[in-house]
Amino acid sequence: MSETITISVDAMGGDNGPRIVLHGARLALRERGNIAFIFHGRQEVLEPLLADYPELKAVSRIQHSDVVIAMDDKPSSALRKGRNVSSMWNAIESVKSGEADVAISGGNTGALMAMATFCLRPIKGISRPAIAAIWPTLRGDTIVLDVGATVGGDAQQLVDFAILGASLGRALFDQEKPSVGLLNVGTEELKGVDEVKEAARILAEHDGAGYRYHGFVEGDDLGKGTVDVVVTEGFAGNIALKTAEGTARQVGTYLRLALKADWVSRIGAMISSRAMMALRRKMDPRAINGGVFIGLNGTVIKSHGGTDEIGFKSALDLAYEMARFRLIDKIAEGMAEFAPEAAEADKEAAENDTPEDSATEQTA
Amino acid sequence: MSETITISVDAMGGDNGPRIVLHGARLALRERGNIAFIFHGRQEVLEPLLADYPELKAVSRIQHSDVVIAMDDKPSSALRKGRNVSSMWNAIESVKSGEADVAISGGNTGALMAMATFCLRPIKGISRPAIAAIWPTLRGDTIVLDVGATVGGDAQQLVDFAILGASLGRALFDQEKPSVGLLNVGTEELKGVDEVKEAARILAEHDGAGYRYHGFVEGDDLGKGTVDVVVTEGFAGNIALKTAEGTARQVGTYLRLALKADWVSRIGAMISSRAMMALRRKMDPRAINGGVFIGLNGTVIKSHGGTDEIGFKSALDLAYEMARFRLIDKIAEGMAEFAPEAAEADKEAAENDTPEDSATEQTA
Repeated sequence: MSETITISVDAMGGDNGPRIVLHGARLALRERGNIAFIFHGRQEVLEPLLADYPELKAVSRIQHSDVVIAMDDKPSSALRKGRNVSSMWNAIESVKSGEADVAISGGNTGALMAMATFCLRPIKGISRPAIAAIWPTLRGDTIVLDVGATVGGDAQQLVDFAILGASLGRALFDQEKPSVGLLNVGTEELKGVDEVKEAARILAEHDGAGYRYHGFVEGDDLGKGTVDVVVTEGFAGNIALKTAEGTARQVGTYLRLALKADWVSRIGAMISSRAMMALRRKMDPRAINGGVFIGLNGTVIKSHGGTDEIGFKSALDLAYEMARFRLIDKIAEGMAEFAPEAAEADKEAAENDTPEDSATEQTA
Repeated sequence: MSETITISVDAMGGDNGPRIVLHGARLALRERGNIAFIFHGRQEVLEPLLADYPELKAVSRIQHSDVVIAMDDKPSSALRKGRNVSSMWNAIESVKSGEADVAISGGNTGALMAMATFCLRPIKGISRPAIAAIWPTLRGDTIVLDVGATVGGDAQQLVDFAILGASLGRALFDQEKPSVGLLNVGTEELKGVDEVKEAARILAEHDGAGYRYHGFVEGDDLGKGTVDVVVTEGFAGNIALKTAEGTARQVGTYLRLALKADWVSRIGAMISSRAMMALRRKMDPRAINGGVFIGLNGTVIKSHGGTDEIGFKSALDLAYEMARFRLIDKIAEGMAEFAPEAAEADKEAAENDTPEDSATEQTA
């Protein structure tokens, strides 16, 4: 793997400013050699910071942007004020233009999704993009999507998410046909909402076309790692994600309080401190930072806004992997396996496309 | 509190048979003096078991039922085969007839909800009953509803759940106006689905009428205990509940594995074993067993089907509390505070009701 991956970074995104972004980039660069960066943001802010990290400076360039999208900007106003001029937009634009392989931002999720969708456009045949989370489980990682890009959604949308998730699974897990489950309130056939049942029917019918269809899964299957990919609409998915984060923190607090309760326990905890540290690492939210915007003609990674350099470095790792494993190609393959006729027709249409047509479509 | 609470028990419900049910009842009786039991089930099975527990026998009677509802019976077929003749139905019927103050079953949830709804009927003015979970949080318990009786639901239904949940909060927490939050995917005004936004508007408008309206809460507010009552429709609520259970188990497994990793850690864990035991008690799912069916003219408690005598005893504790704190009266008060005119009209209508009218309504 000597090919260089270029990552386009919204250096102004996130609650903690550009220093943790650059610091995270330096950590990622140290671990892997073959990364280049484009940092988008205010030249006068980024230049002196980058000067502190000569080895990072050597593989980076700064692209000035006037506007910074605030964490509380609404998506619509972010688009209005930030299109073509904000560090967030320009980070995405670098992927569209082919300068970068993947973009990353710790800025506000709604604005980032709106800009990514507007700039990169959904992949033909995919109705709406999703946010995929890489969920740590007792049996390795599980991909969960959507965790917050959509609210509600029909059966076809859930099927799209399954195809996208399975493609991401092929990229991440080195598996030919990842197992796919539909999140539901019960494993019996009779339960659940109509969209989920209809999606189950379609997924079962195409079983084997790029994925193995497992059936329904429930909330507790997430932590167990029952399947490689869990598909849900974004309302339930986001609630599940945040509930799991909250529960992990809650149990961690119980543990800390229990081990501080008396001096005997405190000594015990000290003796087993190596185990406690291993546990803390396992539960460290910084180690699993980053959501993948999937279903667009280009990959954008969302880092948690409140993270530090360790967390931002994790999100950069994820960005790197997505580029290295060619997520976009994997999705095209996944869609072709699911519906070979449609893929063939699309290919022909694309070949007959005149440049003018594409231009019209893109400004639409 | 010397008044005796009579609990009607489906002694045949659950995966582990009637012995754990009777054993759990004995534990509950030992802790409190003032309970009486009606055990519904097969006389020939229950009689010899009860003979083993003379002190329990002294406060109990067995009511024979021919039919046992299976854990995998569909609600419709359970109703067909079990109405008037099953231990599950008869346990509920004892509440309707006034013989018992509350009913409990570890049998299958769908069948129990169908029978409870059919037998007890929803409270006038409440569209659909809910299942309320008592959720352990860092700041005491939070009531979460619905966690699985409904799927989807309009704004009015969410408002109903808020009134029911606040009434349950008044019963459980000894608080005049429990705080109520609506589960959503973001705390900004603009986010979420239309039903949730409309419910927020109505709840804010009536703020103070039996509850304090807090606003939107997210998945991670559950574990924090941000509000006393969290309102959601049953699909998201059930997924949140099971995700939290699964995550707690997952973290528990990590902890166990970490503390077994090497002999130093093992010794440390031994030394801090009192703290570990306290932690285990805190996370013991048996200690928080029991969902409250709420919104019907009578209270039914669902115990987890796979629990043991300790877990069943916890569910009996919950049943006891619901009866002692007169949940049904609290709900009537809550509804009257929320919509005083409607409550007044209902009262008048009830006074003018002829016995024939009621009979017609109940067989409808």
